[in-house]
Amino acid sequence: MKYLQQSFSVKFEYKVYFTSGLFDLSNPLFNDFFKSDDSSKKIFFVVDEGVGRVVSDQINAYFNLYKALNLVPEILFVPGGEQVKNDTKYFDQILEAVNTHKIDRHSYIAAIGGGSVLDLVGYAAAVSHRGIRHIRIPTTVLSQNDSGIGVKNGINYFGKKNFLGTFAPPFAVFNDELFLNTLGERDWRSGISEAVKVALIKDPVFFEWIETNAGLLAARDRETMNYLIIRCAELHMQHIAGKDPFESGSSRPLDFGHWSAHKLEQLTDFKVLHGEAVAMGMALDTVYSNLSGYLSDHDCSRILSLLQQLGFELTHPLMETGSDNSKILLGLEEFREHLGGELTIMLLEKIGSGIEVHKMDAEILKKAELVLIGKQ
Amino acid sequence: MKYLQQSFSVKFEYKVYFTSGLFDLSNPLFNDFFKSDDSSKKIFFVVDEGVGRVVSDQINAYFNLYKALNLVPEILFVPGGEQVKNDTKYFDQILEAVNTHKIDRHSYIAAIGGGSVLDLVGYAAAVSHRGIRHIRIPTTVLSQNDSGIGVKNGINYFGKKNFLGTFAPPFAVFNDELFLNTLGERDWRSGISEAVKVALIKDPVFFEWIETNAGLLAARDRETMNYLIIRCAELHMQHIAGKDPFESGSSRPLDFGHWSAHKLEQLTDFKVLHGEAVAMGMALDTVYSNLSGYLSDHDCSRILSLLQQLGFELTHPLMETGSDNSKILLGLEEFREHLGGELTIMLLEKIGSGIEVHKMDAEILKKAELVLIGKQ
Repeated sequence: MKYLQQSFSVKFEYKVYFTSGLFDLSNPLFNDFFKSDDSSKKIFFVVDEGVGRVVSDQINAYFNLYKALNLVPEILFVPGGEQVKNDTKYFDQILEAVNTHKIDRHSYIAAIGGGSVLDLVGYAAAVSHRGIRHIRIPTTVLSQNDSGIGVKNGINYFGKKNFLGTFAPPFAVFNDELFLNTLGERDWRSGISEAVKVALIKDPVFFEWIETNAGLLAARDRETMNYLIIRCAELHMQHIAGKDPFESGSSRPLDFGHWSAHKLEQLTDFKVLHGEAVAMGMALDTVYSNLSGYLSDHDCSRILSLLQQLGFELTHPLMETGSDNSKILLGLEEFREHLGGELTIMLLEKIGSGIEVHKMDAEILKKAELVLIGKQ
Repeated sequence: MKYLQQSFSVKFEYKVYFTSGLFDLSNPLFNDFFKSDDSSKKIFFVVDEGVGRVVSDQINAYFNLYKALNLVPEILFVPGGEQVKNDTKYFDQILEAVNTHKIDRHSYIAAIGGGSVLDLVGYAAAVSHRGIRHIRIPTTVLSQNDSGIGVKNGINYFGKKNFLGTFAPPFAVFNDELFLNTLGERDWRSGISEAVKVALIKDPVFFEWIETNAGLLAARDRETMNYLIIRCAELHMQHIAGKDPFESGSSRPLDFGHWSAHKLEQLTDFKVLHGEAVAMGMALDTVYSNLSGYLSDHDCSRILSLLQQLGFELTHPLMETGSDNSKILLGLEEFREHLGGELTIMLLEKIGSGIEVHKMDAEILKKAELVLIGKQ
């Protein structure tokens, strides 16, 4: 058998910066990052409308003062939230801008917004000219500590979440704490659930810290939130850099609680936010872990208490698992189909440590749901 | 300045197999490749119509006998050639099949065809579920020794070649020499030009070998072509595995002769084949290298003679560079824009060794063109 063997490694590196007032004229961080670069390079901004149109004045003023890059005068505003990933016209608008403004692959596309906008822009950047440099400026708790600092992007297609997407590390990420001021109550809280998740799977000390600080987090204490974001981002980044950055295997520890969460978001037409759905998905899989004998009663009730203390609902009428036409159960197969290979679900054996299973028992799921309804 | 540093490497590996009669019932190679795999995995085939519909009978018979994978019964036929990359409906057809047949990312999409079909299918596979495993079965000289064994894919958009695409290594490549029997004269010859190119940039011994065997190649001697393909594939693969597999820099040695070639293909609506255009592009940049004092007269005439001996035209009316409204010169800026960064053109300083320049002189280009018209 004659063959040639190909083998090579590609190194990926990027920094996640933490700052306050990224486009304040007194803050040179953003400009300095590009300073050593060739100044003929362009930067094109796509901005989440939820951030407010005033940001375009700030960007213009900033690039009037700082000249490391050529600002493309058109700033593209797109809606925030899942809708921007559902309609391909926003994807097309970015491609058109790349073409019109001749953004080449040594130039930059920057996205300012929540996770959905970052996912959309990251995907458009990744496939234009086989990958234009992508700068992420996440504006929500969720995107600053989770989706925005990772390596995935995507849009929805055929009504399926992230049906189209790639693994494409950003060129750099800038987390600006001031953007968090613009968040409503639900978006503020929603992002905390991914921190609870990563603590549950990887770091019992961080879980205890969240327990201790739950009151301050719920009361929107800025310094407390800053620590939560940086520690959560760090745990996520360590995980990505670990065994399988581009997820070629079947194991997805960071998807704890996500099989039902993804489905619930879709069933509610994304009226339930991702973080809220993840909290309910974690509650379900926590009680399931307990009923299956993996997780102690004590740990189970600590987890449910924390979620409630943070202000999360523990379940939703559409999380109904007991009947033959349960829609949420379809989430199991869709989860498997999207990730590929064998169904692999992360459960908990204690706080800070997960255990993988390859099937879920419908009877136990039904009991878990009843436990949660009782707690609401 | 507070930041988190992300850093990881991703290893990519694949084999390029050489065989004869891939779907002959007596040839277990293809089945054996997947044998250790979980047999619930699916394989979906997309086939270039130019290969002939009979291949679907062969595939069906093969998977009746060999059971390592589940064959998706629908085999999708698409037109060959550039048209399949110009119309996004073919891209959509593949996505629809992925959705309908629930091809997950541990399953396989196989493409059988020339470079255009492989580029299209590779792109669709790369962005579906963030990357379904992709098997390439190239059927032309060009795709067996160049595009099909590399890491790029793409489709055309806004009338621009490969405007959309990614870097995504295949899972495996199977080169079947029997497919070459189906090629017409132009397709057979066309693929040889990329072998001349890689020899000119990297391997003077291989260039001499092509000179010695030019007659046999033009006469379609199978064994001679087999060696040309394997050596050319090997040089390409070594180059990819070298410094910059995903082309983050501006240097593109393998694009020798390609700035004008890409533009000529587009100007002739792809009536001039890629390999034919590359031969003309190499002739232009060879004479340009000579007139600029980089390349000796002796080497210059050896190169032009070889191209002619292989049956290539050396220039084309649309390669006209002398006037203010020369269309081919637009290719320089489009080439720069697609690759990004500074314009970087590979010229020759001797056979087997290139030299990079960052501008092209219009007067010298005009003289080079006149030299080639004189030789036609």
